Amino acid sequence: MLMINCELIDRLIELSIHEDIGRGDLSSIAIEDYLEDGEFHFIAKEEFVLCGTEVAKKVFEKIDQNLSVNFFKNDGELLSAGEIFGKVVGYVGSILSGERIALNFLQRLSGIATNTKKYIEKLSDSDIKIIDTRKTIPGHRILEKYAVTVGGGSNHRFGLFDGVMLKDNHIDAVGSIKKAVEIARKKTPITVKIEVETRNIKEVIEALEAGADIIMLDNFSIKDIKEAISIVKKKVKLEVSGGINIENLDLYKKLKIDYISIGALTHQAKSVDMSLKFRGKV
Amino acid sequence: MLMINCELIDRLIELSIHEDIGRGDLSSIAIEDYLEDGEFHFIAKEEFVLCGTEVAKKVFEKIDQNLSVNFFKNDGELLSAGEIFGKVVGYVGSILSGERIALNFLQRLSGIATNTKKYIEKLSDSDIKIIDTRKTIPGHRILEKYAVTVGGGSNHRFGLFDGVMLKDNHIDAVGSIKKAVEIARKKTPITVKIEVETRNIKEVIEALEAGADIIMLDNFSIKDIKEAISIVKKKVKLEVSGGINIENLDLYKKLKIDYISIGALTHQAKSVDMSLKFRGKV
Amino acid sequence: MLMINCELIDRLIELSIHEDIGRGDLSSIAIEDYLEDGEFHFIAKEEFVLCGTEVAKKVFEKIDQNLSVNFFKNDGELLSAGEIFGKVVGYVGSILSGERIALNFLQRLSGIATNTKKYIEKLSDSDIKIIDTRKTIPGHRILEKYAVTVGGGSNHRFGLFDGVMLKDNHIDAVGSIKKAVEIARKKTPITVKIEVETRNIKEVIEALEAGADIIMLDNFSIKDIKEAISIVKKKVKLEVSGGINIENLDLYKKLKIDYISIGALTHQAKSVDMSLKFRGKV
Amino acid sequence: MLMINCELIDRLIELSIHEDIGRGDLSSIAIEDYLEDGEFHFIAKEEFVLCGTEVAKKVFEKIDQNLSVNFFKNDGELLSAGEIFGKVVGYVGSILSGERIALNFLQRLSGIATNTKKYIEKLSDSDIKIIDTRKTIPGHRILEKYAVTVGGGSNHRFGLFDGVMLKDNHIDAVGSIKKAVEIARKKTPITVKIEVETRNIKEVIEALEAGADIIMLDNFSIKDIKEAISIVKKKVKLEVSGGINIENLDLYKKLKIDYISIGALTHQAKSVDMSLKFRGKV
Amino acid sequence: MLMINCELIDRLIELSIHEDIGRGDLSSIAIEDYLEDGEFHFIAKEEFVLCGTEVAKKVFEKIDQNLSVNFFKNDGELLSAGEIFGKVVGYVGSILSGERIALNFLQRLSGIATNTKKYIEKLSDSDIKIIDTRKTIPGHRILEKYAVTVGGGSNHRFGLFDGVMLKDNHIDAVGSIKKAVEIARKKTPITVKIEVETRNIKEVIEALEAGADIIMLDNFSIKDIKEAISIVKKKVKLEVSGGINIENLDLYKKLKIDYISIGALTHQAKSVDMSLKFRGKV
Amino acid sequence: MLMINCELIDRLIELSIHEDIGRGDLSSIAIEDYLEDGEFHFIAKEEFVLCGTEVAKKVFEKIDQNLSVNFFKNDGELLSAGEIFGKVVGYVGSILSGERIALNFLQRLSGIATNTKKYIEKLSDSDIKIIDTRKTIPGHRILEKYAVTVGGGSNHRFGLFDGVMLKDNHIDAVGSIKKAVEIARKKTPITVKIEVETRNIKEVIEALEAGADIIMLDNFSIKDIKEAISIVKKKVKLEVSGGINIENLDLYKKLKIDYISIGALTHQAKSVDMSLKFRGKV
Repeated sequence: MLMINCELIDRLIELSIHEDIGRGDLSSIAIEDYLEDGEFHFIAKEEFVLCGTEVAKKVFEKIDQNLSVNFFKNDGELLSAGEIFGKVVGYVGSILSGERIALNFLQRLSGIATNTKKYIEKLSDSDIKIIDTRKTIPGHRILEKYAVTVGGGSNHRFGLFDGVMLKDNHIDAVGSIKKAVEIARKKTPITVKIEVETRNIKEVIEALEAGADIIMLDNFSIKDIKEAISIVKKKVKLEVSGGINIENLDLYKKLKIDYISIGALTHQAKSVDMSLKFRGKV
Repeated sequence: MLMINCELIDRLIELSIHEDIGRGDLSSIAIEDYLEDGEFHFIAKEEFVLCGTEVAKKVFEKIDQNLSVNFFKNDGELLSAGEIFGKVVGYVGSILSGERIALNFLQRLSGIATNTKKYIEKLSDSDIKIIDTRKTIPGHRILEKYAVTVGGGSNHRFGLFDGVMLKDNHIDAVGSIKKAVEIARKKTPITVKIEVETRNIKEVIEALEAGADIIMLDNFSIKDIKEAISIVKKKVKLEVSGGINIENLDLYKKLKIDYISIGALTHQAKSVDMSLKFRGKV
Repeated sequence: MLMINCELIDRLIELSIHEDIGRGDLSSIAIEDYLEDGEFHFIAKEEFVLCGTEVAKKVFEKIDQNLSVNFFKNDGELLSAGEIFGKVVGYVGSILSGERIALNFLQRLSGIATNTKKYIEKLSDSDIKIIDTRKTIPGHRILEKYAVTVGGGSNHRFGLFDGVMLKDNHIDAVGSIKKAVEIARKKTPITVKIEVETRNIKEVIEALEAGADIIMLDNFSIKDIKEAISIVKKKVKLEVSGGINIENLDLYKKLKIDYISIGALTHQAKSVDMSLKFRGKV
Repeated sequence: MLMINCELIDRLIELSIHEDIGRGDLSSIAIEDYLEDGEFHFIAKEEFVLCGTEVAKKVFEKIDQNLSVNFFKNDGELLSAGEIFGKVVGYVGSILSGERIALNFLQRLSGIATNTKKYIEKLSDSDIKIIDTRKTIPGHRILEKYAVTVGGGSNHRFGLFDGVMLKDNHIDAVGSIKKAVEIARKKTPITVKIEVETRNIKEVIEALEAGADIIMLDNFSIKDIKEAISIVKKKVKLEVSGGINIENLDLYKKLKIDYISIGALTHQAKSVDMSLKFRGKV
Repeated sequence: MLMINCELIDRLIELSIHEDIGRGDLSSIAIEDYLEDGEFHFIAKEEFVLCGTEVAKKVFEKIDQNLSVNFFKNDGELLSAGEIFGKVVGYVGSILSGERIALNFLQRLSGIATNTKKYIEKLSDSDIKIIDTRKTIPGHRILEKYAVTVGGGSNHRFGLFDGVMLKDNHIDAVGSIKKAVEIARKKTPITVKIEVETRNIKEVIEALEAGADIIMLDNFSIKDIKEAISIVKKKVKLEVSGGINIENLDLYKKLKIDYISIGALTHQAKSVDMSLKFRGKV
Repeated sequence: MLMINCELIDRLIELSIHEDIGRGDLSSIAIEDYLEDGEFHFIAKEEFVLCGTEVAKKVFEKIDQNLSVNFFKNDGELLSAGEIFGKVVGYVGSILSGERIALNFLQRLSGIATNTKKYIEKLSDSDIKIIDTRKTIPGHRILEKYAVTVGGGSNHRFGLFDGVMLKDNHIDAVGSIKKAVEIARKKTPITVKIEVETRNIKEVIEALEAGADIIMLDNFSIKDIKEAISIVKKKVKLEVSGGINIENLDLYKKLKIDYISIGALTHQAKSVDMSLKFRGKV
């Protein structure tokens, strides 16, 4: 999984291990002389979309490179309660040290994937993409956005570095949407799109004329969204944002918009339930 | 706040900033020539217990040491919807770069404090302490456990390094609770307590005889908890764990136990709603 | 300058200082007891476009936060031989330690800005943007791309993370340009553009139909470029690449293309000549 | 190659990879499901002295430890245009991610080795050593000095930590060359030489009497160099510096001096041309 | 050995290697072309308790992962002068680079273990535990405390994070021992004990009533210690500290105390003598 | 003090703080609400040569940049028992957190300076320099070698990077001293000296003819040292090493040698006694 092969993920995992183990796992150190090799199984304790297997592997490998970690299911597969979906084999002292960290990652990421999937299923017969936001747990941005894709969603920018988003503050500082887009175009790498956040139809028209690549309709009524659609006429991408949830998603699914962004995909997700159980010495 | 003055928190904040800003905040860079100093206000958009003000300060200071951040409320205070609880003053380009990161910390930590407070209020007339677990977001352990205390809860161990917890795997490896406690006592710093996780009354008796400092009753029925209490007779601390939630907490509040540990304090907490709004140039 | 306020630049500067100073500046340590405060001047020893003043400042500040560094000219200004363009005031031992490092940055970056400016001037009455490539000194990507903009050029993607570039290897792996663009669109953040590198007119047509955002014409003859222009009809952006240099640039300047990418902006730039001279105690 | 087995090189390579890949190689991630193992060849596109093979290996190994990198030529060998000089075999996604970084190192280092060789060949029948300076790209000091040796040159000090160089500022601070050398001798590790930069014959005499290990003649005329030689009489080493280039090098080659230092070895070197081409699946 | 599997130890070893090798081992680099594989033996040059074998292994492995390091004796075994206790096999250039670093660790840690053993042997027929303090070499805390256990001693807290020690400054700030213990109990993880340092019998009584877990008798006379014992009656642990050395240890061994803490275990330990000798090519 | 202004020292201090404070100073956190600003005094508890004041300052400043640290005595001054030699003023919580770390540095470094001074005084009327070795605590090389100079000693190389030392293994690999020096000269920076370790008079002669800069006489008898002196005739520097201690130092002080290296300066030094005492609120 190329997605997590980057320094940022390595640093997060190392921080997570260091935070938990600190100067040492006292319980394992205490009984070190009695520990041998063993096998542990990952078991789902409720139904959920699996996500985070590669991260869990990395956690165990960083703790002890001799551990062998195998998942029987791939990220994105739906597990049922009681299902065994992977195993870890090796020195029991190392497995016990990594257990909680690996589970904390898996439970959170599977929670996001499972949560996202609910939104996707609601929209099943639509071309609109459900996209995430930057409302993610600090340090977990890449992983959480990956989990959104595992659940069927798409990604908005990963950070401030791979997308320009001109909001009211930016526009006010410069004086007009037109001028803001113009100078942003000059200073932005040619591969990165410029999005303008608009608060009313007047701004939509300005953003369109300014040559924005994407126009975001922030907290627009359904009626205003429809007007914006008729103005933009598919010339640029339209993103709808603000106040959309699993209950009212239906209202948006027939609209000719490109993206619906939903912060709740990540920041309202809950951890799912699973465990890692000892299955005997090997 | 001494709690967050440690390398682990610095690394988490630096990782969080780097993850979001990467090679640069394109939107601010684009309009850099037009940006001046300004003032922004933190506004609560629902009722919640505030938590994370010192972390938010650190985020802004690490991005730009010339920013001035002041909170009008302290961690632990209850905010009402619409309340302005702090401000950031300085270079607008820097504030815009740090806004989302600071909010992500504040929203999550306030969410945990608010969630914890609900449990504490349920137990208000009891001596039992509600304690957290290690089911925290990887890399956020210290902050999340701090948020639990802000919400009125207490802390179990912070990691594998400041508490011994002998579970079935440890005990099975050594052969008996008695032996496990004995060797743990020899290898553990004299300032750290030894806790034994028990699954039945027989194990409680063994743990007591072995000289454990704390005995954890894992998934015990109310009846069995009462029997354990009568056996232990306050000689050591008793922790009850497993299956306790905001609904059934009442059943436990009259028991003569010391601690109730609840993973949901952290892993089922949701972010609260707040924003940072521009209030004009300065 | 927001452009260099990021962890990557800090790490490069710290590495550069550490590489030069190592366990200590022996010459300054030797005469430490005799060193006082002094003033040094930056002097241009040939004509060049200045670039790197903020980096030089950071170098001196990281070595000794009490140094005061001021530049009388801004990045982008043309200096003449003999011109004094800045000064450093403070403890002489610190200034001597940082002198070579700061000059190495300034000389290289000014060299790139000066080099770029020559290309820009050649194209002065055209709308085509001269853009850079990823052929930069490892670790200096951000700085070198910044120097290109200071010289009047524009930036292609900064790395593999902020632009999709589908080359022959990618396309061959997937089977067709159409399919490659399609799957890339699904997996790429919505703010990032997808560019396709084409080797002939047939591929240009495919890339256009596939919905690429930018089409790169790699080593096309002038005749083929013209054909591509007539096909694409400004529907997407056109980048011309390969074999373009300061001598033959004229041939391209009347074409209706959007970008000309030139690796030589960075990898054929030479350091310019300047020095830092002691001007007396203070 | 022991030369690059040090933390400084590891940090530079890691920074270089992180700078380019950032949060992920979007193009490879996009087509990840279609990528298999393949073989790529390094091809020289002009004549040059090869340098940097071990660095290139490290780049690929750090990106993916399962890649196999082999060079058919060693550092220091002269390649002709069109020559295949190495190969990389393994997962195509990893190779594509590392390609540009490895090439950027190889092109720059081979450029320095090739450039240095020209100077060395000019001096072929002389005992004088051509030595480098500290005018290197920040962060690349060790690599660039290594490339100088690969081209046949020798090294002056690697940094401020492994050689004392007393310049006018140091000497003025202390009062005299004699005193400066005396105190430097006391404070410097016994294994490190003390060099004095002189600007005229009077200073040469002082430096000799002060017991300097090396005397540098800075911007001396040929006539003055000859006088210095007759004074020093091989008692200490003589380094000539300033204004020497490939054109006027002949004037110096018969002189009885020990070293000629030339900053242009590194700071005027240009990248050579080479590529990495896909040669099929494996 | 789980004890040293933590980030802190990795950082110390990496710092130690970097400090010694810096930009390269000049002596090995010089003769690199002549170096082959060889075998070296560790030889004790006096009698001592071996300690640090796992650290020495890590040192060599970090320098060159192809080295093979084997110890014939375990940490804790008593070696006699002349005894060969381990070997390193592999590339001679790597072994020579790591030799001094590995020896410096082994000599210091064996020195501490040997020193500790003398104290333990003095107390051989007593239940009192000899414990260490925080008077350790900065950065070496974990290793030195490990060496104390290898020599037969026990550990007090490893740092400020795994034990509460209320001293006069803390108590004075709060107002009374009672109050200090009370608030500490509230803020401290339930797994960590609270120790109170007392200076007289009155404070012992207060600490006992306040519910301290451990009471430290700081610089008490034997008579006062006996009084404290009679007051505490084994209800909490008693630690005796201050002025106890190998000469007067006998005076304490019959007392009914739990711990004697001795800073000299670590800060007065001397390095033992050993060497690593070349035994031929392999 | 330029000597400790380098990354290596910063990393050591940060590691030392992190090792001790970890996730937080529990004792200070507990009573945080009661802590105010105060003043603490450093007091010598025996006679010693002070060393490490700048390091101690850095420790406190890194813990809390608002602390004010002043020493009334400089490194190198002799303190008597009871003397107050410095003070720390600021937030008591921060001072208590840093106290032990700062003292551990000061006690060790003052111990080395004090120990070195004894050797220097023994040699007082000689020109021979007492020099240190690489037998230092891992990670503390720079500090310990600094302490040696504070005690009046001189420094041998700081690491493998700033001096070539050809020992038997190097020479055997190459075939002869002559050849080893020849190739080392070619590969070593011109500012670094080449030393040869010799075991008998024959090797001394070879080393002299090979052009070594320094010849080390390893474990030579006084008689052989005298013969070596008569052979070398001051043409190169002579270092005597092995078996020299404070008792037999007199035997060497009249010899015409340049350096005596003594590992015991550092590895047999003991910590001196001092404390930091609270002197009241401010």
